[in-house]
Amino acid sequence: MTNIQTENKKEFALKKHAEWRGKLSVKVKAPITNREELSVAYTPGVAHPCLEIEKDERLAYVYTGKGNTVAVITDGTAVLGLGDIGPSAGMPVMEGKCALFKTFAGIDAVPICIDSKDPDVIVDTVYNISKSFGGINLEDISAPRCFEIEKRLIEKCDIPVFHDDQHGTAIITCAGLLNAVKLTGKEMGKLKIVISGAGAAGISIARMILRLGFGNVILCGSKGTIYDGAPYNNSEQQKMALLTNKESIRGSLADAMKGADILIGVSKPGIVTQDMIRSMAADPIVFVMANPVPEIMPDLAKEAGAAVVGTGRSDFPNQVNNVLAFPGIFRGALDARTSKITEEMKEAAARAIAAVIPEEELSADYVLPDAFNKEVVASVAKAVMEEAAKAVR
Amino acid sequence: MTNIQTENKKEFALKKHAEWRGKLSVKVKAPITNREELSVAYTPGVAHPCLEIEKDERLAYVYTGKGNTVAVITDGTAVLGLGDIGPSAGMPVMEGKCALFKTFAGIDAVPICIDSKDPDVIVDTVYNISKSFGGINLEDISAPRCFEIEKRLIEKCDIPVFHDDQHGTAIITCAGLLNAVKLTGKEMGKLKIVISGAGAAGISIARMILRLGFGNVILCGSKGTIYDGAPYNNSEQQKMALLTNKESIRGSLADAMKGADILIGVSKPGIVTQDMIRSMAADPIVFVMANPVPEIMPDLAKEAGAAVVGTGRSDFPNQVNNVLAFPGIFRGALDARTSKITEEMKEAAARAIAAVIPEEELSADYVLPDAFNKEVVASVAKAVMEEAAKAVR
Repeated sequence: MTNIQTENKKEFALKKHAEWRGKLSVKVKAPITNREELSVAYTPGVAHPCLEIEKDERLAYVYTGKGNTVAVITDGTAVLGLGDIGPSAGMPVMEGKCALFKTFAGIDAVPICIDSKDPDVIVDTVYNISKSFGGINLEDISAPRCFEIEKRLIEKCDIPVFHDDQHGTAIITCAGLLNAVKLTGKEMGKLKIVISGAGAAGISIARMILRLGFGNVILCGSKGTIYDGAPYNNSEQQKMALLTNKESIRGSLADAMKGADILIGVSKPGIVTQDMIRSMAADPIVFVMANPVPEIMPDLAKEAGAAVVGTGRSDFPNQVNNVLAFPGIFRGALDARTSKITEEMKEAAARAIAAVIPEEELSADYVLPDAFNKEVVASVAKAVMEEAAKAVR
Repeated sequence: MTNIQTENKKEFALKKHAEWRGKLSVKVKAPITNREELSVAYTPGVAHPCLEIEKDERLAYVYTGKGNTVAVITDGTAVLGLGDIGPSAGMPVMEGKCALFKTFAGIDAVPICIDSKDPDVIVDTVYNISKSFGGINLEDISAPRCFEIEKRLIEKCDIPVFHDDQHGTAIITCAGLLNAVKLTGKEMGKLKIVISGAGAAGISIARMILRLGFGNVILCGSKGTIYDGAPYNNSEQQKMALLTNKESIRGSLADAMKGADILIGVSKPGIVTQDMIRSMAADPIVFVMANPVPEIMPDLAKEAGAAVVGTGRSDFPNQVNNVLAFPGIFRGALDARTSKITEEMKEAAARAIAAVIPEEELSADYVLPDAFNKEVVASVAKAVMEEAAKAVR
């Protein structure tokens, strides 16, 4: 992309945002055009649903929008790849996410930014407003704070809480891997998987890969591979050291990648070379999702032998786009009225996304469905609801 | 109203609320139907407005919906006349209020209930999410907590904070009184005004009546008149004792009403008798706003000599309906981008509402404009914006 194109895209995005003045607006479902209508939607009629909910709080799902409303909440500390830009600056992304919730799954979402970086304050604030919503999507909160914040909120709240940056990427990456492994004929359980990037996304992907039984995972952070006794950045990495890297490989990303079947990149643009791809096992699977520029460009990876390449970008095949997961997951969770989004639901979501592509259509350039494939939301929602029904039984 | 009618109205209100499943939904202003549009409203295009806001936070008013978004927040402690029914049960009213914001003033409003009664927690929670909004409408929070909560939030937040139950009712009551005093030829400054009810609304009305210079106010709470040295319920009543009841009248509401020019009722159904009205000065003005049944029914008050009668009900003339004030006040405050709603703005709003009725059209049954009079919002917004402009100069 030339600088002129980039400049034009910037100006266009700013122009459109200034035209919209917010990507969301409120639509009123209850007509209020005369006294009669006013007396139903507001006083005195509104007192009746209030009193019913007072008697049985579950009726909030019947008489208010709770059951179709999700809060999209950030503290602005890890917005896109921009870092800690603050709560107000995070709002365009939160509005965009809410627009996706509505466009893809018909869910009414409310963008909220929290003006604090203190996990205690964030947990309390979100909990205090949580009765207003049917679910909470945490967004763009920096690691390792995001782990603790999500964990505590899941424990406290009686509605589903989901940090999309952790689980969304993990679910879709695993969906792509399921199809890529099938396509390349690799043997589940025996694979060596290297993950470049040991932040929220990397750790969450590692957990899900282990859960799905792909094989041995080696996490690689900014200080090299993570192993039992390594100099960790945080306690989450320490926990992961006990679950991963069974051979206790020490060294750089290049060291870790030797002989690996799968490389997952959620780290930095351009840090993977063709030689590093060549050092991997035969027909390696490469998902390089650094934004906006991947760890290695797809054409270079393929030239060096990669059998399947996925990225985070819409202009290459196999895009790991979070919109494949969160709309269907929340749609299913809200409709099942589940209080948690369980590991089983996440796994079911990954399998449902993978299964949207019929086996005969699988190819190196088609292991993940398109972001606009309308089957995805319904399939994911159904899978989540089936897991919720199992949990009740 | 017969029991059958009441039952039908209840069933109808419940049926409609269950049909709506929330009176609000989200409308997406940014189309997201293909990759190109997705790349503008979301990544990577959305990064540009984020970075602009990071540089200059005021640009949130340009690139997000902040400038047209108000949070409608309750703790559920004083919902309608239902009392402390809890945060979830308060939501139908909050949604209704949001529907009014949109219907009457085009403002996008978000209903939020807070699951705590602790003023410290409420203040912190609201403040922590306040950057998401252009204004905050506090609603149905019980006295005296509402005074402290609003005061502290006005001090902390850089956006307007307005407790409608205090100021909305006060502004509209005063608008009606301005016209009623004009109509009856009473002399401003020399009037004796009795207020039955010394909660949030009563105290706020008293303050505004004093500010507008109607005359001497006597507040009457559950323990009788409020005077310097009376057994107060709270510190707000104590403050009011020093500003009101100059003759230090002690006794009941009936005692206070003797010779009064104006009676304001924000207390309990049916507590005012015809004899109490007869004991007032000639051509008394009576605004009796207990809900759903006024302190005295309008026909009885008129029979006993009342010159002008207003209520909170839509089925009688001169309805004190908050929808006359808050939509225009927030419309003006948002458009002027003022950080506070000042006393001057509230006074200007009251005068603007009164002025919507041309002098030649004023009558005993028409001292307040109809709730659906479309001139009101524009007039109030203009008045608020003019005050904001004065404050800047």
